[in-house]
Amino acid sequence: MGRDEGEDGADRPTVTLSPSAEFPALRPEELAVLREVGQRWSAAIRDRPADWDELPLDPSLDRYRHPPTPSRFGRLARIEMFKSDEPDQLLATETANLPQSGAGRVLARLRRGILGPPLASTAVLQERMRKLVALPVLSSDLLSSVAYGPEALLAVLVLAGSGALNLALPLAGAVVLLMIVVGTSYRQTVRAYPHGAGSYLVASDSLGPRFGLAAAAGLILDYVLTVSVSVAAGISAITSALPGLTRFTVPLGLLAIAVLLAGNLRGVRVAGNLFAAPTYVFIVAAVLLLVVGFTQAGMRGFERLPTPPVTAVEGLTVLVILRAFASGATSMTGIEAVSNAVPVFKPVEWRNARTTLTWMVSILVVLFAGLSLLIHLSGVVPHPNQTLISQVARQTFRTGPWYGFIQAATAMILLLAANTAYQDFPRLLFFVARDDYAPRRFLHMGDRLAFSNGIIALSVAAAIIFLAFGGATQKLIPLYAVGVFLAFTLSQAGMVVHWRRHRGRHWHRRAALNGFGSALCAIVLVTAAVTKFGEGAWVVVLAIPLLVLLALRIRRHYDRMHHALALRPPSVPAGGPGQPAEGGGPRDRAVGGDDQESEQSPQDVRHLVVVPVARLNLAALRALAYAASLGPPVFAVHLSPEQEEADRFREAWQTWGDHLRLETIITPYRAITAPLVQYLDSLHKLRPDVLLTVVVPELMVKRPWHRLLHTPIDQRLRRALRGLPGVVIASVPVHLPE
Amino acid sequence: MGRDEGEDGADRPTVTLSPSAEFPALRPEELAVLREVGQRWSAAIRDRPADWDELPLDPSLDRYRHPPTPSRFGRLARIEMFKSDEPDQLLATETANLPQSGAGRVLARLRRGILGPPLASTAVLQERMRKLVALPVLSSDLLSSVAYGPEALLAVLVLAGSGALNLALPLAGAVVLLMIVVGTSYRQTVRAYPHGAGSYLVASDSLGPRFGLAAAAGLILDYVLTVSVSVAAGISAITSALPGLTRFTVPLGLLAIAVLLAGNLRGVRVAGNLFAAPTYVFIVAAVLLLVVGFTQAGMRGFERLPTPPVTAVEGLTVLVILRAFASGATSMTGIEAVSNAVPVFKPVEWRNARTTLTWMVSILVVLFAGLSLLIHLSGVVPHPNQTLISQVARQTFRTGPWYGFIQAATAMILLLAANTAYQDFPRLLFFVARDDYAPRRFLHMGDRLAFSNGIIALSVAAAIIFLAFGGATQKLIPLYAVGVFLAFTLSQAGMVVHWRRHRGRHWHRRAALNGFGSALCAIVLVTAAVTKFGEGAWVVVLAIPLLVLLALRIRRHYDRMHHALALRPPSVPAGGPGQPAEGGGPRDRAVGGDDQESEQSPQDVRHLVVVPVARLNLAALRALAYAASLGPPVFAVHLSPEQEEADRFREAWQTWGDHLRLETIITPYRAITAPLVQYLDSLHKLRPDVLLTVVVPELMVKRPWHRLLHTPIDQRLRRALRGLPGVVIASVPVHLPE
Repeated sequence: MGRDEGEDGADRPTVTLSPSAEFPALRPEELAVLREVGQRWSAAIRDRPADWDELPLDPSLDRYRHPPTPSRFGRLARIEMFKSDEPDQLLATETANLPQSGAGRVLARLRRGILGPPLASTAVLQERMRKLVALPVLSSDLLSSVAYGPEALLAVLVLAGSGALNLALPLAGAVVLLMIVVGTSYRQTVRAYPHGAGSYLVASDSLGPRFGLAAAAGLILDYVLTVSVSVAAGISAITSALPGLTRFTVPLGLLAIAVLLAGNLRGVRVAGNLFAAPTYVFIVAAVLLLVVGFTQAGMRGFERLPTPPVTAVEGLTVLVILRAFASGATSMTGIEAVSNAVPVFKPVEWRNARTTLTWMVSILVVLFAGLSLLIHLSGVVPHPNQTLISQVARQTFRTGPWYGFIQAATAMILLLAANTAYQDFPRLLFFVARDDYAPRRFLHMGDRLAFSNGIIALSVAAAIIFLAFGGATQKLIPLYAVGVFLAFTLSQAGMVVHWRRHRGRHWHRRAALNGFGSALCAIVLVTAAVTKFGEGAWVVVLAIPLLVLLALRIRRHYDRMHHALALRPPSVPAGGPGQPAEGGGPRDRAVGGDDQESEQSPQDVRHLVVVPVARLNLAALRALAYAASLGPPVFAVHLSPEQEEADRFREAWQTWGDHLRLETIITPYRAITAPLVQYLDSLHKLRPDVLLTVVVPELMVKRPWHRLLHTPIDQRLRRALRGLPGVVIASVPVHLPE
Repeated sequence: MGRDEGEDGADRPTVTLSPSAEFPALRPEELAVLREVGQRWSAAIRDRPADWDELPLDPSLDRYRHPPTPSRFGRLARIEMFKSDEPDQLLATETANLPQSGAGRVLARLRRGILGPPLASTAVLQERMRKLVALPVLSSDLLSSVAYGPEALLAVLVLAGSGALNLALPLAGAVVLLMIVVGTSYRQTVRAYPHGAGSYLVASDSLGPRFGLAAAAGLILDYVLTVSVSVAAGISAITSALPGLTRFTVPLGLLAIAVLLAGNLRGVRVAGNLFAAPTYVFIVAAVLLLVVGFTQAGMRGFERLPTPPVTAVEGLTVLVILRAFASGATSMTGIEAVSNAVPVFKPVEWRNARTTLTWMVSILVVLFAGLSLLIHLSGVVPHPNQTLISQVARQTFRTGPWYGFIQAATAMILLLAANTAYQDFPRLLFFVARDDYAPRRFLHMGDRLAFSNGIIALSVAAAIIFLAFGGATQKLIPLYAVGVFLAFTLSQAGMVVHWRRHRGRHWHRRAALNGFGSALCAIVLVTAAVTKFGEGAWVVVLAIPLLVLLALRIRRHYDRMHHALALRPPSVPAGGPGQPAEGGGPRDRAVGGDDQESEQSPQDVRHLVVVPVARLNLAALRALAYAASLGPPVFAVHLSPEQEEADRFREAWQTWGDHLRLETIITPYRAITAPLVQYLDSLHKLRPDVLLTVVVPELMVKRPWHRLLHTPIDQRLRRALRGLPGVVIASVPVHLPE
């Protein structure tokens, strides 16, 4: 967490989402070593001839700065692929990003047609959202939860018979209280952590990386499930209105995920515009339903309509009540979206984010409380083929255009709610990857400034889960609560530690608020994990520690990599190489370092070039000429299946002029790769300080199927040499005509 | 066919099946060019320092000739991987063929346990067969055909009702005549072409390569079908005896193919021993059946038993008769096996082969004629769940041990008949590949001296066909006749041309015999193709020209490759490179040749080394040190997503000492590979005579899953640079700890 142990960070620069996160700056001690290494280089460079670094061409592509000349078609001007403003610096234009091959170009253009043209890195700041755009984009998950949250609560209660439904209102009240506490708690988090990353950052910062990773793991599962659950609930809003579509549930869901994938790969701004309208439409639709519903209820004196009798299948135990509460609490999923996404707001980010969060929670409380009350007054109960909102809407408006509007708005926001996860999941992975706990490829911003790898990973995972559960919302709910409430709990416990550590103004009051939120969330977490364990929560309970373990293993690997790749001060030249050279000749330069593969300056490198030759044809002679013209000593090696063939080859070698030392290896078992690798290994063991460069010709064919006609010796060698230190493979391409 | 246009070849050396076919000798004109190229090298080498070719180590692995020293375990001696008898020559021992990695070694040992230890190339002569071993190995296909041939004949006749069965004996007589003619014809072929390859070689040699390829294509399909049909018929011999196994037909067949695959990968000698006994057992069983059957028939005065009445579904047309004849002629499949396999006989090969062929045809005629007659006398008709032989055997011996013996022997030889195809298919592919009409990998002898690639290809193809037809023998028969009779026809037409061309003793008589055979086979071929077209023969009729076309395309590719790789006389040094250099500096050496990638001697090569650097860590510094120590001029290029990152990198570069020219490319779209490739392409276009060497560090991880944590820039570069001429990629390995 070294890079983020900031103070109250309101004035830290917002560099967190920059594409150069893939290229972190060097630390001062690294720069010091670099300077020291460079001084050793000076010694190596000093002995060079004066013209040594005169290049045979100008790498600034001088020619490209001339005015474009007419092409052979007479009219088309040359497309500039590189521009140059400063000396020694080029700017790659969009054209330079196109692949070389014809098929690749067609694919690239098709992709652009769907995803839009690439965006330059400098556009990253413009891709920010106003509050009125951020509100719908970030709140679709949270607000859409009311479409399945109250139903999930009632679906558990009804197991204890229709009498138990009287507990629905008190339980809904408890959920509302939880919402307000957690929402207020997150307001404090947004202010304290203006770079976003929410639970992961807060928990890591205050409680340590393991807790942070646990929160991240919870959220990662939560985001995946958000997509699955929202899509499932959205499809069931559609099938409630149009029962004929029920059998297309799964393909419709997958289609929805595909559309979300494409939309999000286009990048953050377009996604915002695309998803702003439906959220507002839903809010309007829900408010309309509440107003008309309560008006009708008021006209009958707020009298509750009769409930159809339901037979109890379980007793009304505390367990059932707790399970109902935990299920209802899934209405809160998505409340953390703003705290993760602070940097996408326009400056001043934290202030805009906090305001948006307040709006969101207020709307949520109104909708959740209102709907719960209306459902209670309507006397409807959960039904397998019809959602509760659909039942209430049918009761309020009859089946007609208004009913259709309600259902369409619900389906739309649910299908798009998943979009919040598409905003947050890649961003969370970015932060986790920046701390080396996830593969570094999640740091890479796509050419539309979206984290394409994260977006694709989310889509694949969500589609798999959706398929596995056949798109049934209520089966997915038990998995849902555990991950998200783990993240809430840890995030708010972290805030308590944060306040205690910084002891700013009113820190007692703030810590108390966060502590209360944390405690409430912990209760929900334990309730959900225990009461829903058998129904699927065990998957999440198991997956979270596994994900944390995986993250720790990834971090360990990267740590070792950083250690292995760290610049080391050049050691004092030793007396000689680790194993004394036999017949080494006059090239006895000192080598630095005593371990292998540590050469950091030219005088440390001791070369020997090996050219395996099968036949004396043009390809072999090119490889030999290449090797011999490099400079270091060269010898050739020929592998032969039989003595006669070896003699014949040696004769041809003599005819050629025997210009290089030739070593012949008879391989009576006719294998080529294995003996060559063993031979190179033996050479390496003989003199571990000598860096072997193996020069192999590589036949390049025009058509893919032609590859089947050749044995790619260089590829097989490369794979076989994977474990061998100190062997460089240089492949000299020989392009074959078609 | 250039290499095989021999005379009456009895005294040509038997080099055809040598493992060095992969390394053909250079032709005199190639040697002349080689000498000329070598003289240009002399000029290049002359200017070198005196110690230039002194190597820092002894490539003869001098150290390995010392007596083995105790290892750190105190007792184990070092395993010698290379032995050396002559200077500059090493002999790879068996150990040198083992892979380096632990998992690879375990796999290799497991493979050896199943397939046996590798055999040295010098063992190729010992892997020859005596006549008494060759007879069963090569004749199992031919002799086993009598198990389904007579049945295939009757199965067609019976369509015209039981009355048509009277035609069975005359038709069988016609088939016997055909057998004798074709057998005698092949005797002449074996003598004339002692190197084997039968139809392919004969037809290519006399009629031209296209006819040869048509014959080869016919045989290739024939061999694949031999495996499928024999396995299918073998399994139905088993299920005739044990009806309970009928539902396991497909898995049993696949198991049989797997056993054949493993057995044949072990190599030719073991396969011979393994498959000798069952053929003899089958001959004994068949003769026993004939003797007892005819004795019983004789006791009742050779009276024909009553035939169960069968309703005619077709009229007795000429078409039905011809179709029955063509189906019965499948009893001859396998007659060409000896002529293809002459070289596996002990010397004198052709004489032993001819004798064996005579034996085989004699046994075939006795068994086919005898069984046809016995079936006729027994009055049995084809039955879907019981083979004819099974019915006759049940009638003769009652169901009991003798019946079981007959069925077991039949099943055994049928299951093993496929082995003939395993002998011939890879050998045929070897000859086709030696003429560049098939992928060169079919030239490669495995470490058991068997052509592993051909054996595996055959097994896969046969298994697919077996699966596609559900293991039903009679459905496969229509596909069978076309390919094999095409090969017979072409082979014997070729012999006619051969005799006419050479006009030796009795050439008229010999040509007449082969001509007669050819004509008969052509009639069968046309009959089979026309009458069975709708039943599946169309697949073969279509596949043969496609295979020929494919072979011609492969040949064209290899021809172009040979032309492209042929040694060219070095052209007179031109005035300068194709495009004049701008600011090329004092290194204006002349370049030879005016096309790209034609450098054949060191002075033709003009180097420029490019090192792409992402971060200044140990890996980058190693790549820079490697590049700078090689000799040619070097510059570095850094791709940056943002201006600030580029400035930061340049500062670090200054800190290091700015020892090399640095070019920065800003890629605002964050792609790395595409702009780099475009940049290299631009450099190449600027000076096509300069060979660019791109030095990239390659991170090597210990565990496979760690690869997911890294972006393999060098692999992506290599793939992207596939189309670019004049760019060498050298990857400097950096091994990461676990």
